[in-house]
Amino acid sequence: MPDIEPLRSAAPLREFVKDLAGLLARKPEEAAILRDGGALLGRLVARDDWLPESCAQPHPQRYSQYLLHADSAQRFSVVSFVWGPGQRTPVHDHTVWGLIGMLRGAEYSQPFHRAPDGTLAQAGPAVRLSPGQVEAVSPRVGDIHQVRNAYEDRVSISIHVYGANIGAVRRAVYEADGTRKPFISGYSNDFLPNIWDLSKTS
Amino acid sequence: MPDIEPLRSAAPLREFVKDLAGLLARKPEEAAILRDGGALLGRLVARDDWLPESCAQPHPQRYSQYLLHADSAQRFSVVSFVWGPGQRTPVHDHTVWGLIGMLRGAEYSQPFHRAPDGTLAQAGPAVRLSPGQVEAVSPRVGDIHQVRNAYEDRVSISIHVYGANIGAVRRAVYEADGTRKPFISGYSNDFLPNIWDLSKTS
Ligand SMILES: [Fe+3]
Ligand SMILES: [Fe+3]
Ligand SMILES: [Mg+2]
Repeated sequence: MPDIEPLRSAAPLREFVKDLAGLLARKPEEAAILRDGGALLGRLVARDDWLPESCAQPHPQRYSQYLLHADSAQRFSVVSFVWGPGQRTPVHDHTVWGLIGMLRGAEYSQPFHRAPDGTLAQAGPAVRLSPGQVEAVSPRVGDIHQVRNAYEDRVSISIHVYGANIGAVRRAVYEADGTRKPFISGYSNDFLPNIWDLSKTS
Repeated sequence: MPDIEPLRSAAPLREFVKDLAGLLARKPEEAAILRDGGALLGRLVARDDWLPESCAQPHPQRYSQYLLHADSAQRFSVVSFVWGPGQRTPVHDHTVWGLIGMLRGAEYSQPFHRAPDGTLAQAGPAVRLSPGQVEAVSPRVGDIHQVRNAYEDRVSISIHVYGANIGAVRRAVYEADGTRKPFISGYSNDFLPNIWDLSKTS
């Protein structure tokens, strides 16, 4: 089994999962999910003492996306994105609502607009996220972006929440000329941290 | 990270989790949970080709309980119990509803009745579970039992579902004279199998 130490305390993540499930059970509109879920995520990333080491490891060649929790009904998933120095995503969409909370380091998110003729153009300047800050994406508020580590010499980590089992969602990446290519991201981890054992963690 | 191969197909477990979440979302009475959830569990344990190897490993000294999935709101948890040859639980209770589906090998469940004066007595004969069979426990239908591997020379595995995050529930084990001792079981695994990556598993 893994040679990585278990969690000291998964309580903040467990509380976040519980609170978000409670929010979604009330079947709010997307705007309320982004507002109230964003506040919950902001509280989660206001502290950086709970992310399991196993889900904070950079990969030398590419960014990593570690599933932390998937909801039973796949109403949502929580993922840790780990950017090695200088790493970036392709331009991509999500097709579902998403919330991005900066935990460690910093990242830039560059929004794009896709014109009816298929061409891509930057939609305003890149947004810089610092620890504790939260950003939203969705087909309604802007769904296409490219994300990169703000640093060339250190790891950055953001916590993402999506309105689906995001690793299994059929979505797209885009080339510079706007060409759309089907994309299913999957996850980097074959094992999730056990955040549910209150006999070991507080 | 773990040196154990990822799942070939987690689809049956993923479907079970989704279907049980759907059942519980309708807020049924306990009797309906045991009946309809029991049918879902029966379907899950009717085949034995989906349990991750990491959650099928016996421990030489004691039975193992591997968390497979915890619901976001801790409405339920799914656990694989692995009995090494001749291993058994203490006499114990659950305090919440539970369903036990036999996956591999066989086990005996001996029910107990606790009299108002605190003494324990066997409540009828032990029930033998064979692969595909499902049994229920709860404070309503009988909550105290002792479970043991039916075999002295091989591993048996049953899949348990409980109406809570069972590893964190404050419950009890009982000595032969009926003495009640507080008990929180925890889990044997620090990492859960990632059953949500449909890009790797079908
Ligand atoms: Fe994104
Ligand atoms: Fe039991
Ligand atoms: Mg869940």
